[in-house]
Amino acid sequence: MMSDRNALERAGANASGRGDLPSDPPGARRWSVRATLPVSYEVIVAPGLIAPDNDTLAEQAFGYVPKRRLVVVEQRVLELFGDRLVRYFERRDLHAELVCLATTEISKDSKQAFRIIEAIDDFGIDRRSEPIVVIGGGVLLDVAGWAAGLYRRGTPYIRIPTTLVGIVDAGLGVKTGVNHAGHKNRLGAYHPPQLSLLDPQFLATLPRRHIGNGLAEIAKIALMRDARLWALLRAHAVDLLDTALGQACGEQGKDLADTGYEIITRAIHAMLAELEPNLWETNLDRTVDFGHTFSPSIEIAALPELLHGEAVAIDMALSCVIACRRGILDQQTLSQVLDTLGRLELPLEHPVCDEELLARGVTDATRHRGGRLRLPVPKRPGEPVFLEEVSRDELTVARMLIRDWMGANLADY
Amino acid sequence: MMSDRNALERAGANASGRGDLPSDPPGARRWSVRATLPVSYEVIVAPGLIAPDNDTLAEQAFGYVPKRRLVVVEQRVLELFGDRLVRYFERRDLHAELVCLATTEISKDSKQAFRIIEAIDDFGIDRRSEPIVVIGGGVLLDVAGWAAGLYRRGTPYIRIPTTLVGIVDAGLGVKTGVNHAGHKNRLGAYHPPQLSLLDPQFLATLPRRHIGNGLAEIAKIALMRDARLWALLRAHAVDLLDTALGQACGEQGKDLADTGYEIITRAIHAMLAELEPNLWETNLDRTVDFGHTFSPSIEIAALPELLHGEAVAIDMALSCVIACRRGILDQQTLSQVLDTLGRLELPLEHPVCDEELLARGVTDATRHRGGRLRLPVPKRPGEPVFLEEVSRDELTVARMLIRDWMGANLADY
Repeated sequence: MMSDRNALERAGANASGRGDLPSDPPGARRWSVRATLPVSYEVIVAPGLIAPDNDTLAEQAFGYVPKRRLVVVEQRVLELFGDRLVRYFERRDLHAELVCLATTEISKDSKQAFRIIEAIDDFGIDRRSEPIVVIGGGVLLDVAGWAAGLYRRGTPYIRIPTTLVGIVDAGLGVKTGVNHAGHKNRLGAYHPPQLSLLDPQFLATLPRRHIGNGLAEIAKIALMRDARLWALLRAHAVDLLDTALGQACGEQGKDLADTGYEIITRAIHAMLAELEPNLWETNLDRTVDFGHTFSPSIEIAALPELLHGEAVAIDMALSCVIACRRGILDQQTLSQVLDTLGRLELPLEHPVCDEELLARGVTDATRHRGGRLRLPVPKRPGEPVFLEEVSRDELTVARMLIRDWMGANLADY
Repeated sequence: MMSDRNALERAGANASGRGDLPSDPPGARRWSVRATLPVSYEVIVAPGLIAPDNDTLAEQAFGYVPKRRLVVVEQRVLELFGDRLVRYFERRDLHAELVCLATTEISKDSKQAFRIIEAIDDFGIDRRSEPIVVIGGGVLLDVAGWAAGLYRRGTPYIRIPTTLVGIVDAGLGVKTGVNHAGHKNRLGAYHPPQLSLLDPQFLATLPRRHIGNGLAEIAKIALMRDARLWALLRAHAVDLLDTALGQACGEQGKDLADTGYEIITRAIHAMLAELEPNLWETNLDRTVDFGHTFSPSIEIAALPELLHGEAVAIDMALSCVIACRRGILDQQTLSQVLDTLGRLELPLEHPVCDEELLARGVTDATRHRGGRLRLPVPKRPGEPVFLEEVSRDELTVARMLIRDWMGANLADY
């Protein structure tokens, strides 16, 4: 049973060659256990997922018997698409047991997860062959993914994000979790989905503010990894908001559909390229942490006022100003960043952002990132660098400069 | 950033060569995310762990700065060894923040885990460099390991089992978890420890019944994987109980110390050899599930009457009788099994074991094992086979035969 890949070593009392281990006391025995866990999952962009004649959902999510699934759905999604969803399942004789939840960043806690666990228990799920189907925004994906992860030490699940943040960010990786004790995602697990099914058509009914919320995450990955994506975002910012990336009805939408599609798939590709080599965050220099250093503290402190992407926008603004002050980012690009975030109707500051809160953000992030801050900032679009530390003064100056810039540039702020 | 090992595939609408996927609808895009998680941890048998002049604990658990650790300790252990433990830390200037918990199978729930999480939060733990040290029995190791696993999606921890079950079973693998909704370990995670430190000297103060409890797990692994271990167990059963595997004081103990040590290290080796190639239970034919098919239902139904190993003994007796009735196990070995379990003062039956409960055990195990029962039974000591199904009649007959055998062989039952 022991293979080369899984070589269980048994060493006697005089095992040597282990510089980091002490000499063994008499009578000691030691073993090294080594193994590797292979992980794989598919990410599919599939427009029109619940259109009557589209087979993708049925084949991908109900692909093997028994054709019964627990389907966890966000309440708002059920209100908007419940009828179509039920008809889709009925027409194909699929037994979908719907569990409806209304999640928000405030209720993103273990209690919500335990509600899902109860539903899993009642359903009597098979541990391997009946993946839980989760349809909703980023918060629901995180909570339900965590519940699936801890049920029987891991039950497979399928992610179907219905928000832009979900499609380009929360729906792509392996992180799951809930907020706890006033901290964002303090409890969680790395639990890869079996599959992510991404349907941009869900965006058509998404409120304008939630489109901006998702565009903030696209701005993040663009500034870190993809200059062309950043250029597209800058060029079409207002139109993208107006037409839900070309998914909303009307002539204007039609024109933008191709651009919107390119933006979505580029964002997904950049995000997956960043995530894949570092699924378990072994490397703590993560460009996807751009905008995610101060924002967890800001978001929690401002609850329920700011959406996730809005807090991320404030963080990106701060980070870019700091980078510019240090001569890393040029003034022109900084102006473009602040201007674009503004045109995406994202905030650049918030009253909760005082000195204390930002300092706490630094402390928390440093602790979370193995004792170093590793603040990602763009050198230019698509080119990240990491700052090892940031002083309180730098943060205060950055806040001031953003306020000045807003006064000078955004009459309506 | 994309390496061969982590090849992010990007395929167009006509990706082919994927027999299990449908033809993509127009506009579809797909990615395959592939990665591997390497896992490794050390298991060290280190007698005299908290002796004043033993460096192992200090070097292994406090090996890198800052030299502060959260130490989760079972209350009973603190009563017995608290003074020595505190002196050990003080003498070496190690800052150990002790958290004391009294765990039992009944209180092995998410509430207990959340108490530990609160302590972790208060301690302000560093996510990577401050492993939580857990000292206690199998239940505490499971609960605290789970809490560590879900805190910030995984905080390192070190296992120091103080019971025989902990040393030869619960302290060795990567499973963590709590009971939930009347089911054993229904919530949990695979969260490998950074290290397991095993000290047989803790056995000296362990109640006789808990020695038997651990010997049941040793009997399990012996019957599945190691005929010599089984022979040792049979030959010394009563002495092992009497002397806590040679760790308890007295002349008799001294004589048995070598045998006890061989038994412990053989059991650990067999267990690790079984676990290592299958850490995440990808292969559901698990010999360590011997004695663990009916016992989860039995243990929960009989709470708080039976210890884990006692429920396992009842299950092993049933499984062996079934194997014997089918002609897989010979009558003589069956008698040896029942006789040895009896001499280890382990129960062979319990009033809760009615037809319904055993049938439920079959259903639960079948669901847990991917739709097949996979009941492990010994063909002969050290040689396992798996039974695909078991009928209700077989279970009833097995119960009857065990009762008959007890009437004929164990006058004092």
